[in-house]
Amino acid sequence: MVDVTVIIGSKSDREFARRVAEVLEEFEVKYEIRVASAHRTPEKVIEIAKNSEAKVFICVAGLACHLSGVVAAHTLKPVIALPLARGILGLDALLSAVQMPPGIPVACVGIDNAKNAALLAIEILALSDENLRKKLKEYREKLKREVENGDAEISKSL
Amino acid sequence: MVDVTVIIGSKSDREFARRVAEVLEEFEVKYEIRVASAHRTPEKVIEIAKNSEAKVFICVAGLACHLSGVVAAHTLKPVIALPLARGILGLDALLSAVQMPPGIPVACVGIDNAKNAALLAIEILALSDENLRKKLKEYREKLKREVENGDAEISKSL
Amino acid sequence: MVDVTVIIGSKSDREFARRVAEVLEEFEVKYEIRVASAHRTPEKVIEIAKNSEAKVFICVAGLACHLSGVVAAHTLKPVIALPLARGILGLDALLSAVQMPPGIPVACVGIDNAKNAALLAIEILALSDENLRKKLKEYREKLKREVENGDAEISKSL
Amino acid sequence: MVDVTVIIGSKSDREFARRVAEVLEEFEVKYEIRVASAHRTPEKVIEIAKNSEAKVFICVAGLACHLSGVVAAHTLKPVIALPLARGILGLDALLSAVQMPPGIPVACVGIDNAKNAALLAIEILALSDENLRKKLKEYREKLKREVENGDAEISKSL
Amino acid sequence: MVDVTVIIGSKSDREFARRVAEVLEEFEVKYEIRVASAHRTPEKVIEIAKNSEAKVFICVAGLACHLSGVVAAHTLKPVIALPLARGILGLDALLSAVQMPPGIPVACVGIDNAKNAALLAIEILALSDENLRKKLKEYREKLKREVENGDAEISKSL
Amino acid sequence: MVDVTVIIGSKSDREFARRVAEVLEEFEVKYEIRVASAHRTPEKVIEIAKNSEAKVFICVAGLACHLSGVVAAHTLKPVIALPLARGILGLDALLSAVQMPPGIPVACVGIDNAKNAALLAIEILALSDENLRKKLKEYREKLKREVENGDAEISKSL
Amino acid sequence: MVDVTVIIGSKSDREFARRVAEVLEEFEVKYEIRVASAHRTPEKVIEIAKNSEAKVFICVAGLACHLSGVVAAHTLKPVIALPLARGILGLDALLSAVQMPPGIPVACVGIDNAKNAALLAIEILALSDENLRKKLKEYREKLKREVENGDAEISKSL
Amino acid sequence: MVDVTVIIGSKSDREFARRVAEVLEEFEVKYEIRVASAHRTPEKVIEIAKNSEAKVFICVAGLACHLSGVVAAHTLKPVIALPLARGILGLDALLSAVQMPPGIPVACVGIDNAKNAALLAIEILALSDENLRKKLKEYREKLKREVENGDAEISKSL
Repeated sequence: MVDVTVIIGSKSDREFARRVAEVLEEFEVKYEIRVASAHRTPEKVIEIAKNSEAKVFICVAGLACHLSGVVAAHTLKPVIALPLARGILGLDALLSAVQMPPGIPVACVGIDNAKNAALLAIEILALSDENLRKKLKEYREKLKREVENGDAEISKSL
Repeated sequence: MVDVTVIIGSKSDREFARRVAEVLEEFEVKYEIRVASAHRTPEKVIEIAKNSEAKVFICVAGLACHLSGVVAAHTLKPVIALPLARGILGLDALLSAVQMPPGIPVACVGIDNAKNAALLAIEILALSDENLRKKLKEYREKLKREVENGDAEISKSL
Repeated sequence: MVDVTVIIGSKSDREFARRVAEVLEEFEVKYEIRVASAHRTPEKVIEIAKNSEAKVFICVAGLACHLSGVVAAHTLKPVIALPLARGILGLDALLSAVQMPPGIPVACVGIDNAKNAALLAIEILALSDENLRKKLKEYREKLKREVENGDAEISKSL
Repeated sequence: MVDVTVIIGSKSDREFARRVAEVLEEFEVKYEIRVASAHRTPEKVIEIAKNSEAKVFICVAGLACHLSGVVAAHTLKPVIALPLARGILGLDALLSAVQMPPGIPVACVGIDNAKNAALLAIEILALSDENLRKKLKEYREKLKREVENGDAEISKSL
Repeated sequence: MVDVTVIIGSKSDREFARRVAEVLEEFEVKYEIRVASAHRTPEKVIEIAKNSEAKVFICVAGLACHLSGVVAAHTLKPVIALPLARGILGLDALLSAVQMPPGIPVACVGIDNAKNAALLAIEILALSDENLRKKLKEYREKLKREVENGDAEISKSL
Repeated sequence: MVDVTVIIGSKSDREFARRVAEVLEEFEVKYEIRVASAHRTPEKVIEIAKNSEAKVFICVAGLACHLSGVVAAHTLKPVIALPLARGILGLDALLSAVQMPPGIPVACVGIDNAKNAALLAIEILALSDENLRKKLKEYREKLKREVENGDAEISKSL
Repeated sequence: MVDVTVIIGSKSDREFARRVAEVLEEFEVKYEIRVASAHRTPEKVIEIAKNSEAKVFICVAGLACHLSGVVAAHTLKPVIALPLARGILGLDALLSAVQMPPGIPVACVGIDNAKNAALLAIEILALSDENLRKKLKEYREKLKREVENGDAEISKSL
Repeated sequence: MVDVTVIIGSKSDREFARRVAEVLEEFEVKYEIRVASAHRTPEKVIEIAKNSEAKVFICVAGLACHLSGVVAAHTLKPVIALPLARGILGLDALLSAVQMPPGIPVACVGIDNAKNAALLAIEILALSDENLRKKLKEYREKLKREVENGDAEISKSL
């Protein structure tokens, strides 16, 4: 049983799935990665949207990024869109993903920002998982320390 | 039996369906207008895409214009997208409609350009309908005369 | 005790808070609406971000939409951004909200799309609230019926 | 006798003509490729538009993509525009191609998306060619299998 | 015999032709206004481009502004494009007009800026018309005085 | 003697000068408002840039907003650009104002944001004026109270 | 004595001056190339604008492309702007150059399109130079032949 | 004690801090460089904003560039934003930085334009530092000479 289902529209987007997976593994969140295209295998997308036992979906696509919208149309669970910078710098994917009609929301993160797609899923899961919350806190502390180390080093290195 | 199925994503887009219909009627093309949303009634969209006996689809939607893409995913017939200027002047709808992934084409016309969506459908139908072709020719002649009349009048009116 | 904290950056954005509230009330979700500006009352924003007992934040702002980012920086809970179309059709608010740096995610919905901000919050809450999930299902059914009624009527009205 | 006339505005766009041709050949659709510029050899473009025996035109151009509009002005057959990403990421070519005045439609596909230009032409031809329709169906099946294979592999490879 | 041929793509753009004409009349430049559409009456556009005795063309169009490009393809005289703000705030017309392929130039002025289209034509004509040059100088002096009067008044009126 | 010279490119931008002036007066900063156009009265702009005794310039212009750049080229004092939303929603003015070549900086504030242009000037002046700094502090307190009052009221009014 | 004065805003834009020069030399048009910056050497720009004996100016600049506007403010001769693709793909330079205020026109050509800047200047000069007109005609013929040769070759090479 | 505090949002933006520093050193302006993230170490940003003894801040960030806004919210001193071209060519950072709400100004310079961020800070400091003003004047003279040398060389080198 998985907590997050990551769907990529094509095998060529695998690199972004990998980056999402890395963060999910760091948090020991169970996930699956599926390849399913909103346009080439729409039934499969619908089947995954309807039957996945995950609590959150992460949909990864470039160009006209419909994948998240199609999944959202078939589930009541939160759907996170990760728009990719293929055509026109990702502006096409961003607008396709975020400008959903009233009634069927999608949670969009920044262009190519796989890390944030994973972390948003984790924040949602952490609402009912104290342990995950603790890890999120540590993760933030780590981010903080990295910045602080950067601050400490910069006076010497510049 | 109809030749063109016009789908609008919401009743509020009715005005654009009406403008498409006006042109189709002028050419005596049989059509139906359906209201079906890619996100709120996805099964219905799929059902229409699969079962319509029409030869061409015209899909009308604003914002993240996924309707044409969803229809295209479920038919082998030509799908015409008519993107509407709701958010961001229609740039969101245009990019959502036109930037389809390789493999599943959509034929996009200009933003809010209902007339051209209808005429493109008619041009496609006219390939195997000599009578329709004749009407298209007359239509173009009429457009021509209008411009020419405008040209004749302008020297006097300005 | 509330489940959703809605923050608007200025009293002039009240209309959008009202639209978010309407949906939340329809689902009987407990919420509070706060006015707090990322730039004029930053301490207050931080204080709300840190101390709110809500599970989800909805941050509403136009122009340089920093509010969601500032809240996200001070909480581990999901933060939903609702960018408003003030300058440059909302493109400025959308990009400010969604393009967060890796590490601190924000869940962005469409420009001016108050309904989806509320519904996304509800979807997240529904993950651990069977009753809410049931209401979401009914809400979707209602959306569906509206579209279907539209479809039934259109053949007569056009 | 050909079914599709592909026109490129300059020899330097040959690569995109080649990609269009590859798909047409895979479907055994007869085609010709012509080099003719809307601005440097306008008479030739008009002559091709008027005299080609093809049923569909595919016009390939970057920058101010007028080629499809000029062809559309001289034919009643469907004209497909393939806008190329030269200046400003193809946004200039896309807008030049798709924003035609009411009356003279052009069917626009995505930026640099040669495959979809070819497939759209094939979908149009398939309306009166049962054999082509069958091949389209197989093509879609192949696309489907590729995605499904990708899905099968991904769990192992990641 | 005229010095400037102003072409508008449709009678509905008459207002902009009028504004161009006003400036030309102020300078006593002989002109004609023609209505001719690059897409609806292409032969007429070509005929005007080839046979006009004018020294400069001003082409006025919105959406996919091809008119100036088509005229430029059929003349060696300077062609001025006046892009209009119809779709997408005139960005579509501007890019369609200005992004010509190397070899066939068009002189583009600002969106809806009829005054500058006329003045650019006059500057070109003034190169070989001392009298016109004198008027241009006076026109600039007038502009200057208007600004200076504005400067004188503002301290009192504010 | 004045501390701030506000220049507007045309009398028609007077409204924005008035809004800048209102803030400056609230802070009792001495200012002058000048009408001078970078293109119609360039010498005047240069003369003001060189001879004004003010410490800061605020340049207000729409479309191709060159005014701030021309002033910056002729002074070593800080120049604030206030780009106006005339053509293309102010994107043209913003980019014209802010994208200065390396070596000659301009300090750009938001589109139509007269208040911030004035406040930025005041912040600069306050660096050497303790009294002004105190007023700025009070101004911020007032902004804060307004937001806080909004927060207090909203629970009752919604 | 020269017919065209080409001004580049910085030595680093030399490559584009070279491309302009190549075309001018091919037409045996006398020209000079000047380096003068609207912001770093404004007096020099003004001096060139006022004293050049050329009939046409070509101004080459990227980012906030003010050079053409500053020259236009100081001359009654036609000024051609060649916007360069430095920041934001040249959209900043294009808008800065083309969106001039009513009264002071600039003739803008496409982004980085040095060839068209030169050819536009030549078209203007050719209005009073029969010999130049003849060369322009030959140039167009040559362009035509190149396209036609491309057309002849493509059937063999593809 | 320092006059300018430069803050970068992440160590990876160090290169831009270095370029800012180079100019500040050339002018012998005392500065410090800090690494502090608006989202990962918000308290640190606030602490720096409140306690720095500098007179001017320069905030460097890409994507959703909130850093300058957060600093501006906690200081009365001038805050200069240097938006970086990471996502969408810097348009996201530019709009995030410049479109501040009325009341809390930020002084924005061009995308990636580190030099101008430094020079703007210096111009502000020079208002009360005659020596710095003298150096600014020399700097401008140097810029001028470089352009003039370029002008002298170009006739020979081309």
